[in-house]
Formats: sequence, C-alpha cells, structure tokens
Amino acid sequence: MSGFAQRPPLPDAHKRQDYLARLIEYLKIPSISADPAYAADLDRCANYTADLLRWAGMPEVELLPIVGAPAYVVARRMVNPQAPTLLIYGHYDVQPEIPVERWTTPPFTPHVRQDRLFARGATDDKGQVMMHIAAIAQLLQQGGEIPYNLIFLVEGEEEIGSPHLQQFLASYGASLPCDLLLLSDTAMWDIGKPAITTSIRGMALMELTLSSASRDLHSGTYGGAVANPLEMLSRLLTTLKDDEGRILVEGFHDGVLPISPAMSDELQAIPFNETVWRQGIGLSQSWGDPDYALLERLWMRPTLEINGLWGGYCGQGMKTVLPAQAHAKLSMRLVPNQDPAHVSRVVEQHLYKHLPPHAHLQIEHAPGSGFGLRVDGAHPLLHAVRRGLEEAFGEAPLLIGEGATIPAVAALKERLGAMPILIGFALPDAKCHAPDENIHLPTFYAGIEALIRIYSYYSADLMQE
Amino acid sequence: MSGFAQRPPLPDAHKRQDYLARLIEYLKIPSISADPAYAADLDRCANYTADLLRWAGMPEVELLPIVGAPAYVVARRMVNPQAPTLLIYGHYDVQPEIPVERWTTPPFTPHVRQDRLFARGATDDKGQVMMHIAAIAQLLQQGGEIPYNLIFLVEGEEEIGSPHLQQFLASYGASLPCDLLLLSDTAMWDIGKPAITTSIRGMALMELTLSSASRDLHSGTYGGAVANPLEMLSRLLTTLKDDEGRILVEGFHDGVLPISPAMSDELQAIPFNETVWRQGIGLSQSWGDPDYALLERLWMRPTLEINGLWGGYCGQGMKTVLPAQAHAKLSMRLVPNQDPAHVSRVVEQHLYKHLPPHAHLQIEHAPGSGFGLRVDGAHPLLHAVRRGLEEAFGEAPLLIGEGATIPAVAALKERLGAMPILIGFALPDAKCHAPDENIHLPTFYAGIEALIRIYSYYSADLMQE
Repeated sequence: MSGFAQRPPLPDAHKRQDYLARLIEYLKIPSISADPAYAADLDRCANYTADLLRWAGMPEVELLPIVGAPAYVVARRMVNPQAPTLLIYGHYDVQPEIPVERWTTPPFTPHVRQDRLFARGATDDKGQVMMHIAAIAQLLQQGGEIPYNLIFLVEGEEEIGSPHLQQFLASYGASLPCDLLLLSDTAMWDIGKPAITTSIRGMALMELTLSSASRDLHSGTYGGAVANPLEMLSRLLTTLKDDEGRILVEGFHDGVLPISPAMSDELQAIPFNETVWRQGIGLSQSWGDPDYALLERLWMRPTLEINGLWGGYCGQGMKTVLPAQAHAKLSMRLVPNQDPAHVSRVVEQHLYKHLPPHAHLQIEHAPGSGFGLRVDGAHPLLHAVRRGLEEAFGEAPLLIGEGATIPAVAALKERLGAMPILIGFALPDAKCHAPDENIHLPTFYAGIEALIRIYSYYSADLMQE
Repeated sequence: MSGFAQRPPLPDAHKRQDYLARLIEYLKIPSISADPAYAADLDRCANYTADLLRWAGMPEVELLPIVGAPAYVVARRMVNPQAPTLLIYGHYDVQPEIPVERWTTPPFTPHVRQDRLFARGATDDKGQVMMHIAAIAQLLQQGGEIPYNLIFLVEGEEEIGSPHLQQFLASYGASLPCDLLLLSDTAMWDIGKPAITTSIRGMALMELTLSSASRDLHSGTYGGAVANPLEMLSRLLTTLKDDEGRILVEGFHDGVLPISPAMSDELQAIPFNETVWRQGIGLSQSWGDPDYALLERLWMRPTLEINGLWGGYCGQGMKTVLPAQAHAKLSMRLVPNQDPAHVSRVVEQHLYKHLPPHAHLQIEHAPGSGFGLRVDGAHPLLHAVRRGLEEAFGEAPLLIGEGATIPAVAALKERLGAMPILIGFALPDAKCHAPDENIHLPTFYAGIEALIRIYSYYSADLMQE
C-alpha cells in the first residue's frame, strides 16, 4: 500500500500552471454534440482526451467506436484482477454556445479574468474531467502505487442525453467491470462549501396529441358544437394534480419510500435560505405539494410537469380557429424505487380514463427515461470522499440532492452494478449551459487536491473492503 | 313606378357571356389585402370596380381615400331626396392564395371546368359583387326607372377584418344615408337552395399571458417547488366552462334573449342532417351545452373558445423546461343584445378571481370586437327578397344563421342605422379561403336573376313604406 494514503503528494505552482494550460487547450476545441457540423471537432476532442489520459500515465487508452456517435474514450490501468476497480465517468462534449453575442469573450477562446477562466465547457464538464486526470497524473508521476484498478470512460454525447450509451454498454460493458463509479458533473453548495450529491431523480417522458375533428375549423362557423382540443387538453391536464400540487394519478407513487430520518437529517444540515432562493428566480411564493418541505419536493419527491403545450394560432394578432389537434409534452422526475415504465403506464391509464368524451388521444413515450437513485450518505465508501473534500476545502461536505436527471449515472449503475459517488465542483455561478460559462480557479486547484486525497485514501479504504 | 316590378327584364345568353367575361377580368387582379406587396393590385382592382359601376350606369362613382387603406369605392344614384336609399356593400379584396401548389389551375388565371369558374375571389366576394352590378346594369340598360336611391360601397380590406372601416364611416358616413343594407357575402344552403341569413354572431377577443418565475427554469432542478405557468393556465381555462360546455362566467349571458318561438320555427324548417355535418369534418360526436340543440348552439348561443395556447418547448424531442410564461388567445362569439365590452369585462373578472395563487396574469383585449345581430325573418322588407329568390331558384329561401362574424355588417348597421339584409350565394363547396375557390355558373346566373327581381320588387315595396 502506498504511503500516499497518509501524505498525498500535492502539486506545486508550476504543475498547477501546466494543468491550467492543458485545460485551456482542451477548451479551445468546439466539441458541440448537438450540431452535426462539429463532428470533426468532436473527433479531435476525443483524441485530445486520449492524449491527456496517456500523459497522466494511463497505460491502455483507446477510442471505442459506435456508429453514429462520437468515439467513447476508455483508459484502463488494471493492476490486479483481484483488486477492486474504480470507474471515472465524464464527458468531453459541450453545450452549444448560443446566444454567442452574450459572451464577454468568445466561448472557444478561453480567457482568464480575475480568478476565473471563461469558456464553454470550463466547468461542464472538461474542467472537471481535467481535475480527475490531473489528480491521477500527479499521483502516478510521483511514483505512487495506486493499488486498485482504474478505468476512465469519457463520452461525447452527454449534453444530448447520451443517446448511444446503452448501446455502448451493451457492446463494451463486459470489458468495464467496476465496483465504484466516480462522477464529477454535479454542483458544490457554494464557493468553499463542497458537496456530495446523494440523490438524483430519474425520468419518464411523454408527448400527448389530442384531436377532435379531422381538420382545423372556423371557430365562428363551428364554435359551440365541436369539442375544442385545446379546451379538452387543458381539462385533461388539470386532472393530473389537485390545485395544491398533489399528484392524483393512481399508482404514480407505487414504490416511493417515505423520507427516512437520515434523509431528513441531511436536509436539516443544509443552510438553505428560501427567500434568497426565491429572489434568485423572481418568485413571490414557492409552490407544490403542501405535505412536503421545499427541499424534499426538489430532491426527494417525484414530479409531473408540463414542459410544452401548444395548438391553434400562436402568432401575432388573432385567427379564430378551432384546431384539429392540441399537444403537450410531459416529464416526470422519479425517485429511487419508482419504475419509469410503470409510471409511464399509470399516467397513460389515467389520461385515457379521464379523456373527455369524443376526444382522441395519442401518447408517445419519448426516449430518455431512467431510474432515480440514492446513495446512503453514511456509506463507508464515502469516508475517503468526505475526508478528502474537507481537507482540501477546509469545510466538511454537505450531502445534497439533485432534482435533475443524469441519464448516464442510472445507466452505468444499472449496467455495471457499481455504487455511484457524485462529487461535483460546479459553483452556483458557473453558468453551465449559458453565456460566460466559467470555472473558479481556486476551486479548480482545490478540486484537484481533493481528488488526489480521495484517490489516495481509497488506497486504504477500497483494499480493506 | 316601373313596370319592371311586374315583369323584370332578364338577361339573354349574350349578356350572360358579357357578365362572365367581366368577372373573369375582375378575377385576374390579385387584390390580396393581407400582403402589402399587392398594394398596386388593390389600387388597380378599386379602379376596375369603379369602371364596372360606371358601365352598369351608376352616375356618380368615386374612390374615397383613407390613409393606409386601399380606396373605398362608392357609387351613387340618387333619384329623389325623399325616397328611401338602399346601400349595397361588398369587397374587392381577396384572401391570399396559399398554399398555391394545391390549386388545380393558377388562382389568378380564371379557368372554367364543367359548370364552375375557378379563381381566387370567384365567390368571395368578386363573384357576388359582380352579380349585384350585373343586376343593376340590366335594369338600367333596359331603361328601367329604379325609383329609390342606390349606393354601392365596395371596400378592399374585408379579408383582414376591415381595420379602417370605422374610420371611413366616421369620415364619410354622413354622405351615406341609407334605409336598407344589402350584402352578399354569406352562404346558400346548397345548390338550388337559396337562403337569407337572419343572424350573425358578434365577437370579443383577448390574449392572456400567465407568468410565475422571472425566467425559464430547469424542470429537474426546480420542478416540484415552482408553480408551472402551463399548469396554472390549463387550470384557469378549465374554470371557464363545465365539462359539458356550459359557460360558467358570471354575467356572461347578461342580455342574452331566450330563443323565441319564431327562431325555433326557423330552425325546424332547416333540412339539417347532423350525421352528414359530422362526417364532413371527421367528427365522431358533436359537443356543447346540452341545454341547446346543435343549430341553436351554432347560430343563436354565444361561445367562448380557446383559439391558441402555447408555452414551453414545442419543438422536436424534449426540453425539460418550466417556462416563465404561458399564453392563450380567446374568442367569444356573441348574440344580439350582448355587449362585447361587458362580456370582455366579466371574463376578465372571472379570470382574475380564479387565478391560482402566486400566478400573475396580463390580459390584452384585441381589436375586432362587434355586436351580434338578428333580423326578424318575417320583416316586410324581406318580402321582395323571398319572392325574388324563390322565383329565380324555384325554391323558397331558408332562413339560416351564421355563427361567424362579419365585422362590417355590425359597423354599418350601427353607424348608418339601416336594417341589414344578407343574401349570400356561396355554395358549401365554393372553397372560399381555400385552394380551388370557385363559383357555380348556374348559381351565378340565377343569382343575377334573383337580384334583378329583388331590385324590381323593391320598387314597389320600398316606395310603399
């Protein structure tokens, strides 16, 4: 076992400059997965990711192809078939840079202002991928013996919902055995306040099309005698919840576990200020199921939301039409033990049961579903993480939830059977997905230090398992 | 008094050909009012309308200007200041020709196939304007003495809602004194089945914007704790009616008169086949306030319809957004004695009263409002019309309603104080506003004959008043 477990080798100022320089090169590549015009850049970025992993000292690095997808970058360092394996997941693709005119400096020309580096991908996720690679580089270049197996998996489609990940795992999953998943694509609570994300919500998605007559009708000539799809759809959507926000769909909550005392304790420890939260989004009052507290509703309870609703004439002025169809997009955020397929089925049953007479309904289940997950905040495998974060940031990490969905996490957990640990370094003002995305450089360096410590402490913890 | 009142002079085949040729020239002018690119064509069409009126024998013809509008064509034949005045209203503008690729022959290259003439405007309304002009031409060219005063008013903005008509009437209304309004911009019941439209619905229009947070939010990160404007708007719209279609807005029906025995009798006389009607629009069942029969709901009862509804992400795939705003466009069709301003006010009051907590609502009242109107089907001034239609078509006219709104009719009635008579010649398959608009030539000639008879019989009726 390495002595690093006691005294992790931290990088000096010269090395920090080197990590920053490599990140800046990484950020210059416009690896936008949403736009096919950037295919060559995604290819270049996959190769650059592979180069970084080779530089860090990973002995086996390969680009695994899936038709129609950017290459999956996989790096392995298998030291002992009997030892546990830790898989680090990240992504090298980025969100589009639109609206480009609202960037202070160009999105793919990284620029340091004060203590932040501005560029698309600076935090999400190239900056965080770089933190892991730098931590491994430092450990291996200092001659440290990491006594467990390491696998990096860095994909190029996370920002578009990882559409080929299941196929990739079906093709290559057998060559990715692992015991622990480490991901850094979530958030810190605030500057200097590290966090471990212990829950993520799952998802189910559907699109509804409600129709009545076979064509659009003049609302003067036909109004009063024809069921209006816009009215029927409004009426139907209104049956899904009561007017305080409780979901009324029979069977929707099947499997949902009560909020445990441990979960309540975690929430109690969060320094959450509802007033500040509301002001941040211009809200006069919060809303939702009155049987649960706000953070419970955000992190530990499922939702059913309308994400899009449309039909009829939506342009300037008026056109008095009774449209033939009305449409809605629905998303459900799920908590652990809630099966997306079951939830989709009971919502579908509810909709058909409450469908107003003479209306027709088509339901299309959209891809992107996944289970929610929760990690026990007291799990022994979190000890190394807690200790490393606390030592690097000078403050014990908070255990937080994430209301949003990371499809890759559930897919990897399900397929590979490993426990996921989510240590994110995104600050609340990192502006991920928005203009002026940035990374706070002291957080970048502290994050590398925290990861060096975590990888070191795992040398003891994982081998004791 | 003219002997024509007994034996109206009907046109021979040669004259019919002349009327058709003049209509074909009229239809070649693409007088599309919705598109400013056609301003010169509207100007040309106004002049052609004036030429037709001069040819018919109208002694005073002028183009009256209103800034921003195509000219109003006015023709007068004032024979006696003490005699009654009949004003004929029509329009020379047409709907856009889109989708142009679905026309069998080009929309502005009139083409006769079998017994129909195909072109944009063939029925709506150039064909019907031509019928009136031809009828007057025939009477005056045969040396007939029409003993009452005649005014033609032909505008160029009907298809875009007559936005300058109120201004025109304010400027020139004093020079348009009249006792009776005659309009042909409505429908026949079927081929060979003439109709007099005795009711038109009025209108009130509004647009709603409901908001919650100050910006779009991620439905994962915020879902469960923020009122979703799409859900709140659906809930709000659902309060407007019960689930069978009865309007629940307090005060909405103020002033609505019960359906009189005479109105019921008129409906009883209509050979309405609900199955055929439903099949025509692909509807499995009709819908609406079960306290009223279908034709009552279409013609004699007010409506409240959603014509547009939108918010959130409405494109391909999914984007899990909680939008900051949701929008709806509402139209109300009104019956006589229902004040559009009052109806708008009570609907607004209802919406604010039922607004879900923490939601904000903005209401914009759109232009285009107007009163509904009804003409007593037994009115003596309808005698000449009934007789003329019956003699020309061989069948007594039905008294029908029109659920849609013709803003010009209410405006002319209100401003000029005259009784409106609506004799329309549009057949159910005339395809007004659609590709392959056409006029059935036997109906065109029978319509001219009917109008010659009507104008002749008015020589007696009007002068006896």
